[in-house]
Amino acid sequence: MPQQGILIVVSGPSGTGKGTVCRELLRSNSHLKYSISATTRSPRAGEVDGINYLFVAKDQFRKMIDNDDLLEWAEVYGNFYGTPRHYVLEQLHKGYDVVLEIDTQGAMKVKEKFPEGVYIYIIPPSLDELANRIYKRGTDSIDVIKKRLQCASGELSLAQNYHYIVMNDQVAAAVQKVEIIIAAEKLRAERNTALIDNLYSAGCVVNEVPTL
Amino acid sequence: MPQQGILIVVSGPSGTGKGTVCRELLRSNSHLKYSISATTRSPRAGEVDGINYLFVAKDQFRKMIDNDDLLEWAEVYGNFYGTPRHYVLEQLHKGYDVVLEIDTQGAMKVKEKFPEGVYIYIIPPSLDELANRIYKRGTDSIDVIKKRLQCASGELSLAQNYHYIVMNDQVAAAVQKVEIIIAAEKLRAERNTALIDNLYSAGCVVNEVPTL
Repeated sequence: MPQQGILIVVSGPSGTGKGTVCRELLRSNSHLKYSISATTRSPRAGEVDGINYLFVAKDQFRKMIDNDDLLEWAEVYGNFYGTPRHYVLEQLHKGYDVVLEIDTQGAMKVKEKFPEGVYIYIIPPSLDELANRIYKRGTDSIDVIKKRLQCASGELSLAQNYHYIVMNDQVAAAVQKVEIIIAAEKLRAERNTALIDNLYSAGCVVNEVPTL
Repeated sequence: MPQQGILIVVSGPSGTGKGTVCRELLRSNSHLKYSISATTRSPRAGEVDGINYLFVAKDQFRKMIDNDDLLEWAEVYGNFYGTPRHYVLEQLHKGYDVVLEIDTQGAMKVKEKFPEGVYIYIIPPSLDELANRIYKRGTDSIDVIKKRLQCASGELSLAQNYHYIVMNDQVAAAVQKVEIIIAAEKLRAERNTALIDNLYSAGCVVNEVPTL
């Protein structure tokens, strides 16, 4: 039976580039699985249903809530976002690590149910830079940008609820840091009790020392 | 003021090769400082006073205990071993990471005083291999080897008191794993509260969005 996979939750305020970091992370680590969120918001340019998100109608989303099909869900800026439970649990059980990119609210809800996950908070190099990134993305109105920045500022104080903080100043460097975190987490004692059990079950020579 | 350094405690049963791992780790990471233990045991071939250990007389060691100059101390196989407190604290304060190679008893004592340290347990690939290594070292009598193996077997069950478990099957691979652990620990949220504070103190543009 394979070792249980690790749930890697990558979060951070809107505009910190957590999506880009996750995309690059998945591209260079084929053993990682991406947890696709369900959302009721409209697809942005280039976003594909079933790849970037499961785009669902509000009625359908409410059914998923009622059926307890979501690991977490939240309403953000008037839209619903959620994490379908089944896919994540199935991949972890198969031994795959699952990357879940999610906003701060969602991450904290998942953490309540999955404290054994690894919670990574992506922060921008500066608040100025954060404003620039959201502005350059060009997908939001000025009012929405202002709202996002206000939320971001408040959310940064929640960083201490995460296990790790990664500053996204350069995407490649941020991706490498997340890779290092995953590699280190694989070595955590609580994930490796089987190693010790195996040492014992493989046999012990304590009383059989070769003669000189 | 530099970020406080990390105390990296590398431990494991006798014969797991933790000494070799630490030596190679220090050789390839000049920013790490090595915590030199004081001991009353005789130097082994090639061991240099002040480099491998501080070799001290039993009277002198007892004075260090009385003066509370030791972060921990223990009697192992009839000899005293201890960690001089001052050097470790000084280096951590300067922002250096300090590697402390220490037996299981000592590591657990240090952990009581320094829970914020990183505790790494080095295990052998098998108990057979452990016996071979102690035997090949050729520094111990058969009786001492048997005693060491019995202790090792018992000590392995303490692995869960450590943060990480690293199997030393190949020294270079084990060293790399310890390097990964250190790199990841640098990213832990509790060690990076200053990052968030700096984001705020550097200024916030939440209400100053550039006009379209």
